[in-house]
Amino acid sequence: MVWVSAVILLAILQYLVIGALVGRARGWYGVAAPATTGHPKFERWFRVQQNSLEMLIAFIPAMWLYGWWVSPTWAVGIGLVFVAARIIYSIQYIQEPGSRHVGAGLSFLSVFALVIGGIWGAVRIGLTN
Amino acid sequence: MVWVSAVILLAILQYLVIGALVGRARGWYGVAAPATTGHPKFERWFRVQQNSLEMLIAFIPAMWLYGWWVSPTWAVGIGLVFVAARIIYSIQYIQEPGSRHVGAGLSFLSVFALVIGGIWGAVRIGLTN
Amino acid sequence: MVWVSAVILLAILQYLVIGALVGRARGWYGVAAPATTGHPKFERWFRVQQNSLEMLIAFIPAMWLYGWWVSPTWAVGIGLVFVAARIIYSIQYIQEPGSRHVGAGLSFLSVFALVIGGIWGAVRIGLTN
Repeated sequence: MVWVSAVILLAILQYLVIGALVGRARGWYGVAAPATTGHPKFERWFRVQQNSLEMLIAFIPAMWLYGWWVSPTWAVGIGLVFVAARIIYSIQYIQEPGSRHVGAGLSFLSVFALVIGGIWGAVRIGLTN
Repeated sequence: MVWVSAVILLAILQYLVIGALVGRARGWYGVAAPATTGHPKFERWFRVQQNSLEMLIAFIPAMWLYGWWVSPTWAVGIGLVFVAARIIYSIQYIQEPGSRHVGAGLSFLSVFALVIGGIWGAVRIGLTN
Repeated sequence: MVWVSAVILLAILQYLVIGALVGRARGWYGVAAPATTGHPKFERWFRVQQNSLEMLIAFIPAMWLYGWWVSPTWAVGIGLVFVAARIIYSIQYIQEPGSRHVGAGLSFLSVFALVIGGIWGAVRIGLTN
């Protein structure tokens, strides 16, 4: 589980970097807290962070439980696909929100695979014990 | 912990389904990203997803730690109440946000029970070791 | 890990209290769901809750994994700094969003220390096994 943990923490580090960039974008585009709207470019940065948060709440526990009950090696592989998908998503969304579908789809599929795989693995062990 | 894991993943699956429905509602109500406002019905769907996220950040770790330190069986029972409460909440909120209080209250109480029970269980073990 | 769990649950309890205060602020400032804007003071309360959520998604897994792979004692110490930083942040932000930087910086640094320390600990164990 040591590499599963490292990939989870890598995804969190990626998210903290996005959070720092959103803070910087507040200054660039003159959007003072508590506002989260006011400049279209700032709104893109803010939504990238929010969408990362929306995905991490599913990714982190699903990654941990899939690694725990199914396969740590497969978890690491799918987890790295997720981290790569988030980079693609972020770059595309900042450039043009309408082009976000490749990164968004790949993020969603990798999380979905971990959730469905994890349910299957846990239920199978639960029923055979 | 295998059934605790399965219920956590079930709650995540429910959340991913809501997320997909929000994406569909963007199309229905003509709200293009990065906007999250612009049509009252879309805003309901969006807030249901956001509120689910706000609850899951507390539910998932509390469920895991309660199951770990107190009782996996009780964790599964309370966890299933939470999943049912989220269905009630979502349906009521989409129909009429003012009627969300039954589902919202039941969600909050189940999470609160897991958190307080988990703290009690962990501290009790910590003090007796 | 029993005290690591207790501090994680304490941070969640703190977050649930903030959530309840946001619900109360809806009534005070007359902001009916699904709106999240409409009164500057309500927006401050709402953003405090959202920022707490944004930090917890990183704090909770990083705290658990740092405690697991590096040191439960250090995890508890850094975790208590985080909980104190969130209290400072919340009070400052409600009074005046522009003065939030002490609490925000301390929150960020404690989470960052857990993430970097956790990656270092996990990778070191992974490479030596």
